[in-house]
Amino acid sequence: MEFPSFMEILDFIGTFAFAISGIRLASAKHFDLFGAYVVGVVTAIGGGTLRDLLLGVTPIWMTNPMYLVCSGIALLWVIIFGKRIIRQEVTFFIFDTIGLALFTVVGVEKALDLNFPLWVAVIMGTITGAAGGVFRDVFINEIPLIFRKEIYAMACIIGGICYGLLDWFNVDIIINECVTGLCVFLVRLLAVKYHLGLPTLKGEGQE
Amino acid sequence: MEFPSFMEILDFIGTFAFAISGIRLASAKHFDLFGAYVVGVVTAIGGGTLRDLLLGVTPIWMTNPMYLVCSGIALLWVIIFGKRIIRQEVTFFIFDTIGLALFTVVGVEKALDLNFPLWVAVIMGTITGAAGGVFRDVFINEIPLIFRKEIYAMACIIGGICYGLLDWFNVDIIINECVTGLCVFLVRLLAVKYHLGLPTLKGEGQE
Amino acid sequence: MEFPSFMEILDFIGTFAFAISGIRLASAKHFDLFGAYVVGVVTAIGGGTLRDLLLGVTPIWMTNPMYLVCSGIALLWVIIFGKRIIRQEVTFFIFDTIGLALFTVVGVEKALDLNFPLWVAVIMGTITGAAGGVFRDVFINEIPLIFRKEIYAMACIIGGICYGLLDWFNVDIIINECVTGLCVFLVRLLAVKYHLGLPTLKGEGQE
Repeated sequence: MEFPSFMEILDFIGTFAFAISGIRLASAKHFDLFGAYVVGVVTAIGGGTLRDLLLGVTPIWMTNPMYLVCSGIALLWVIIFGKRIIRQEVTFFIFDTIGLALFTVVGVEKALDLNFPLWVAVIMGTITGAAGGVFRDVFINEIPLIFRKEIYAMACIIGGICYGLLDWFNVDIIINECVTGLCVFLVRLLAVKYHLGLPTLKGEGQE
Repeated sequence: MEFPSFMEILDFIGTFAFAISGIRLASAKHFDLFGAYVVGVVTAIGGGTLRDLLLGVTPIWMTNPMYLVCSGIALLWVIIFGKRIIRQEVTFFIFDTIGLALFTVVGVEKALDLNFPLWVAVIMGTITGAAGGVFRDVFINEIPLIFRKEIYAMACIIGGICYGLLDWFNVDIIINECVTGLCVFLVRLLAVKYHLGLPTLKGEGQE
Repeated sequence: MEFPSFMEILDFIGTFAFAISGIRLASAKHFDLFGAYVVGVVTAIGGGTLRDLLLGVTPIWMTNPMYLVCSGIALLWVIIFGKRIIRQEVTFFIFDTIGLALFTVVGVEKALDLNFPLWVAVIMGTITGAAGGVFRDVFINEIPLIFRKEIYAMACIIGGICYGLLDWFNVDIIINECVTGLCVFLVRLLAVKYHLGLPTLKGEGQE
């Protein structure tokens, strides 16, 4: 067993936070332990899985059991802390945003490595970061949150464009990863702090 | 930049009309601009994406940014026209039906080109035409419309069988494409005009 | 035309039972014939399709029309028997459980054949058995049943682990298939008979 790299630790934190969000929402809907675990897993790895299917490669979680183990730890966490988890709200928001930032970087780089153009890479970064939450909401039978509230996926898109710009100027890849990640993190942080959201279209009252 | 072919213009019209339908339904559910755009994109390219994943090839929209640009224009269109878009109802019905017809032909041909048997090709044509609307309805948390109302996917199936028959008789491919497209178009048109629908099964009142 | 093997007969029974369950639930929601058929097909082949996409191979139903034909027979069955189908409840429960058992074995073996590790194979067995029902519930706009009620997917997981253990001890593959299938069958049977379920997490009342 090797000591995990910095990126792997961030990946673990992101997976953990995403799984926690799925498990908590599933619990609120009275899912059983298995159902809550599945929703947690899907939230954590759903985005990466869709990305890998679109890119035509084997989904990342099928090559490394870490993601499922990590989601299992998240399940234990929710069981142990129960309602007291609400007090950890800020911590999980930070973890979740770290996950969003890291997943975006990973998604963008994976698409570029496979020689897709930048605009595809930006979308893959966004899918990696945001699609898991969409699957979660479909499973718990809610309208996906990211389509209605706050800036979430937009942070991934802005981060992806940032990555492309820095790459264009031949900025060192490690620096690029850090700046892009920080960019996603800050956009999301500021959006939540100042309740920034995109405007809503005037509906036609078709409902 | 080349001048677009006739097929590309039809593809543009179909994508535009499908995206409009997704964006309008998302707006009625108070999605924000990003959410509406995503639902529009998914409506437009969801069918083709599922088809390409099943066929084992790279989704078409990842090889040509036209589909995302076209969905963006659809978003602008809805923003600019707002509620007045209702007056364009007939136009969009025609556009939507053109899209259905073209997508069916494209889906059938792609499967046959990859050496799948005709019955798979018919299904791929139907998925290309109709699956985007199913994804749209799952995202906006409604029971998919095509499962309950009017003839929609059936038009694709009939068109696909028509394609297969003409192909069997060695009809020229251009003529076959036109006849098949027209067939889908007319079936859908007549079904809506005369309120033709499939019968409903007697439910067991399990709800 | 060859005479079908024992496995093919079981596959037919499982597909038939899964399709029936989808068609019945779709009917209860007033889907039309086409919609009911699609939900039946998706219930029957959805799990195998997701498995094959994840494993990177062509979905099984695209290589053999048996699955769609079998779902068509299921549709005819529901049309013919209508409400009287309720009297066949026990038969369909047995058929459904045979399907679950067989699909699990098929999924586990397919993943192992493609050289994936056992833990991936267990998940693929579970997806083959249980994911179709999840898609069915998403389409009919209900929270997936298997996340809330009874032991269902857990039977697949236990069966998959059983397969791995016997494989480890070099048990003959035919014997292993039978024991694993029986294991899934019995776990599901006992779970339903004694109303065994997993505990539910304490929700946070976020709804």
